[in-house]
Amino acid sequence: MITFFSMGQEQKSIAEKLGYPADAKLLIVHADDMGLAHSANMASIEAFKKKGVSSGSIMVPCPWFPEIADFAKNHPEYDIGLHLTLTAEWDQYKWDGVLPSSEIPSLINENGFFYSSVEEVLQHADPAEVEKEIRAQIDRALAFGVKPTHLDNHMGPLFVNQELLKIYVKVGKEYNLPVLLPSNYMGFYGADIEEYVGENQVFPFGYMKMENMPADEWDDFYNQVLENIKPGLNELIVHLAFDNAEMQAIAAGHPDYGSLWRQNDFNYLVSDEFKKMLEKNNIRLAEWREIKEVLYPENP
Amino acid sequence: MITFFSMGQEQKSIAEKLGYPADAKLLIVHADDMGLAHSANMASIEAFKKKGVSSGSIMVPCPWFPEIADFAKNHPEYDIGLHLTLTAEWDQYKWDGVLPSSEIPSLINENGFFYSSVEEVLQHADPAEVEKEIRAQIDRALAFGVKPTHLDNHMGPLFVNQELLKIYVKVGKEYNLPVLLPSNYMGFYGADIEEYVGENQVFPFGYMKMENMPADEWDDFYNQVLENIKPGLNELIVHLAFDNAEMQAIAAGHPDYGSLWRQNDFNYLVSDEFKKMLEKNNIRLAEWREIKEVLYPENP
Repeated sequence: MITFFSMGQEQKSIAEKLGYPADAKLLIVHADDMGLAHSANMASIEAFKKKGVSSGSIMVPCPWFPEIADFAKNHPEYDIGLHLTLTAEWDQYKWDGVLPSSEIPSLINENGFFYSSVEEVLQHADPAEVEKEIRAQIDRALAFGVKPTHLDNHMGPLFVNQELLKIYVKVGKEYNLPVLLPSNYMGFYGADIEEYVGENQVFPFGYMKMENMPADEWDDFYNQVLENIKPGLNELIVHLAFDNAEMQAIAAGHPDYGSLWRQNDFNYLVSDEFKKMLEKNNIRLAEWREIKEVLYPENP
Repeated sequence: MITFFSMGQEQKSIAEKLGYPADAKLLIVHADDMGLAHSANMASIEAFKKKGVSSGSIMVPCPWFPEIADFAKNHPEYDIGLHLTLTAEWDQYKWDGVLPSSEIPSLINENGFFYSSVEEVLQHADPAEVEKEIRAQIDRALAFGVKPTHLDNHMGPLFVNQELLKIYVKVGKEYNLPVLLPSNYMGFYGADIEEYVGENQVFPFGYMKMENMPADEWDDFYNQVLENIKPGLNELIVHLAFDNAEMQAIAAGHPDYGSLWRQNDFNYLVSDEFKKMLEKNNIRLAEWREIKEVLYPENP
């Protein structure tokens, strides 16, 4: 089991703030990368409908954004945020920013697309251009009728640079949106993290599968995660798609977070075993919407 | 049968210029819309390999451009040009230009994408921005290692406006690339068409399926086209994709040129019947590369 972010605050108090008993085990099961591909959209939508996930977030610059934005607009009952995106990591399936490339030259590579890696983003990014671009992504989602419940960040460049982190938190506050803050990255900043991100932030325990394994061991991994969920607020980040021609081509050469990986994630979450494990371990599925209502009661 | 463009010059002389007998029936079988989708790329590549098409062209602004550009770069033996693109016609699968939107505002709609229809393009387009954008599409293809053999135009806005037509022809000459000129549009300009497009242009007889029908009548349509191919240069424009989840989602609500339509086109072209019909009617498959070599002998 890999812990993605560790505890950054008293977890039990968060459960109480959200209206649950102090020792409640709350789990946001979160589908990343919605909008990436039609395959990812269909799998995420089916997982929402089957209660395999309780939340998810959309990559606004990706080719299949209009499809998932239309779903989000027409299904406000599902808890959907924005997966702010500054990278395009696949070899032959690319995107650039929402803003014209000429307005964000520091984010665009020699081929006219976003950089592939977090390292390249950190090497080149002008923070002012990052701020403009993430605002533009939120504005485009709003213009398409999406009512996001939270923000997070694809591949994490906003988590690992102090200046970018401040921008991310500031923009979240301005839009009345809670932001995901993974505590393992926060550790880079030491005990004075609150100085950087300000007050009134939530640091859930986080879990994300980072190691590939045979499909028949997939259930064991997630069962172990669920056995170890602690009281307070937790988030399990998953990556969903159907293992079909489209997703296989996107992820060609990348078994990690690849096409079969995403099908395996989907299969587990819609299984009876997942539901039984939630029940057995007294885990309640939670949404970012609930956190938004507590953090921004004037703008639910 | 629908004739897409009619004869604009003495066809037999073209066959001779290309080194064939004067009465040779030459047919370019041309896959439009490469780069549109992974499904379209895979079907087009398979059709090339099975000699179901002899030529095709790439939509540079589309999400799956890098995949097909990589194929074209590594397979110079296939005859591949550029399908200059100024429209994004599907409901929930969109793209914008190669240039930053701020440099081509007259081509971009309120959602930040290309307009859906030719009518909207003609209503809004600034010709100077059209010229910049089509040059940028060619330059991006060249930068990706594609060596295009010709230019044509997705949905045809460059064919129906005199100023845009002149730009298209001018840019083709500057890049030493023959351009597709469909004579039925050329008819708008009357007998003085040469004044607009200049000398040394090719006007093939053209055929394109424009009417949907049950799959079992698909072969009859194309067989009839092939029975009626005339001596000289002809082009049959086809639209290839596999009828799968990706293509069905792209074309949702659009049976014309939709997912099944493209599968039907593919099925016919890789069939034994197509090969037999070519043989029976003494039709030779031709390439734009041959035209390029005649028109631009210094820059083959």
